[in-house]
Amino acid sequence: MSIEKVARVAGVSTATVSRVLNGNPGVKPDTRDKVLAAIAACDWQPNLLARQLRTSRSRMLLVLVSSITNPFCAGVVRGIEEEAEKQGYHILLCNSESRLNRESAYLQLLSGKVVDGVITMDAISCLPGLTTLIGNAPWVQCGEGNTGYNASSVTIDNHSAAESAINYLSGKGYQRIAMISGDLRYLYSQQREAGYRAAREGAWQAVVRAEGLEYQAGYQAMETLFAAEEKPDAVFAISDSLAGGALHYAHEQGLRVPDDVAVMGFDGVPFGAVTSPPLSTVQQPMHQLGVRSVQLLLARIDNPDTQPVDEILAWEIVSRGSA
Amino acid sequence: MSIEKVARVAGVSTATVSRVLNGNPGVKPDTRDKVLAAIAACDWQPNLLARQLRTSRSRMLLVLVSSITNPFCAGVVRGIEEEAEKQGYHILLCNSESRLNRESAYLQLLSGKVVDGVITMDAISCLPGLTTLIGNAPWVQCGEGNTGYNASSVTIDNHSAAESAINYLSGKGYQRIAMISGDLRYLYSQQREAGYRAAREGAWQAVVRAEGLEYQAGYQAMETLFAAEEKPDAVFAISDSLAGGALHYAHEQGLRVPDDVAVMGFDGVPFGAVTSPPLSTVQQPMHQLGVRSVQLLLARIDNPDTQPVDEILAWEIVSRGSA
Repeated sequence: MSIEKVARVAGVSTATVSRVLNGNPGVKPDTRDKVLAAIAACDWQPNLLARQLRTSRSRMLLVLVSSITNPFCAGVVRGIEEEAEKQGYHILLCNSESRLNRESAYLQLLSGKVVDGVITMDAISCLPGLTTLIGNAPWVQCGEGNTGYNASSVTIDNHSAAESAINYLSGKGYQRIAMISGDLRYLYSQQREAGYRAAREGAWQAVVRAEGLEYQAGYQAMETLFAAEEKPDAVFAISDSLAGGALHYAHEQGLRVPDDVAVMGFDGVPFGAVTSPPLSTVQQPMHQLGVRSVQLLLARIDNPDTQPVDEILAWEIVSRGSA
Repeated sequence: MSIEKVARVAGVSTATVSRVLNGNPGVKPDTRDKVLAAIAACDWQPNLLARQLRTSRSRMLLVLVSSITNPFCAGVVRGIEEEAEKQGYHILLCNSESRLNRESAYLQLLSGKVVDGVITMDAISCLPGLTTLIGNAPWVQCGEGNTGYNASSVTIDNHSAAESAINYLSGKGYQRIAMISGDLRYLYSQQREAGYRAAREGAWQAVVRAEGLEYQAGYQAMETLFAAEEKPDAVFAISDSLAGGALHYAHEQGLRVPDDVAVMGFDGVPFGAVTSPPLSTVQQPMHQLGVRSVQLLLARIDNPDTQPVDEILAWEIVSRGSA
């Protein structure tokens, strides 16, 4: 079992096998995959990882996803994957649920150089802990804005997006606009809630914080809003998933949407186009959030002295039947 | 920078640090996480992975998910994570899209002993390639049934579940029951389509294969079915996502569900409870599929001589408003 055998199985030269083992970026992804397949097929264990410890690149990126079941995260991950693949990188995903004890286990992949850098989608409240774990390794925080830490970031202006959503509802003539907010460990929750309050200054306000990210939490929040004496005529939910639960509640109660109550979401995930009525929402550039995260990360991997960059992408209001 | 410093930062003995580095299963997950956090915090790189190459366990499992945006996969992954965590293991997720060139890159983590075993959710058509890459490493195939390879498997009886779904629709009096089928590289697609054909033997049949897994593909398949001269009065979709797209088409065309056309899905994912009307479906035991996959995998990790096991779990028909 030798490098010669691997080269023969892969149909490449031994120099190419060696370039792959040394993480040479000049190797085409196809060729690299062929060599790695041959290594695996030959059951050859040339202390591959020990070797990677000495060389510069693994061409793997670690992505800590806050919640894998969240369709917004899934959309961002797709953008991350596409761009990474284009650049000859592979992605390892970890469902962190923003829990530091999980993350510490995954981040040893970074210190062990199994991965070259990390993209996090974690709650900003986790960042002090993450900073300690990540240290000076290349790091981009996605979807949570300027961190003040050693990470680049890519996000949207959540405050003004929420404000515009409320102004959109006001413009349609809705008077009692309530909000289903979320987990305030996340900066985006804080910012969207602040945007709601700014837009509703001096006007009728009601905020319920959903206990979770799933439909069911939106349903329950809606129940709370409609148990109050003064019921809303429009509800702005901090995510499309929660808005989906709100729609379900409205249907069950025989409330017509948008006549009895309007429902507006946030994110622009695919299922919002097929609810009944389809969901008006704030469209986040999910794919582009992923693409730019990879680009900013690779810039730091290629040049570790690059200063962190905070990038703000554009969003847009999508007007559909629900509001 | 030494093992003593790491022990001091973690607040444990050097013996404990050493036990963690050696992958000793007797260390509590909490303690292990503390030590790993301390190692990262100290920026200590004790050739950790080189060390893991010599020791028996990394306590990481690799999960090759066929499609991370598929809510069925997300539900299974949740079960995998919960059980793995209970057993002191962490999960690395890879979105394989059932593409072998992606998988070969990830599976080097197996030969490099970064992970102790692998759970795949890939199309059965990939298995010959996967077998070569995985070799004799502990392996469980989830959701795709008996493989004939060196993998254990956990799945449901897709053929009889599809047959029962069709019989449920027949029992409601529907006559022209069509099927939106899927990608026949997957065994489950082949089996569900065969179940449909068995139940419809001698009766009216129409099958359209959706081009993808997403809502949009279900919408288009429905368009094709309704472009035919003889239109169906019920549609059985191979997944809830495709059924969601079918519902959307029905709404757009002013077809009443279930009076003009019934729609039935498969999987039992969360959004099916909040569509309008809610989706009748075949409920897969997503969580349990994940849990059993981990248990069968750990059985093989603990005892490499264990023979592969093929396990079939129960499903149930869920009757809601759409059919």
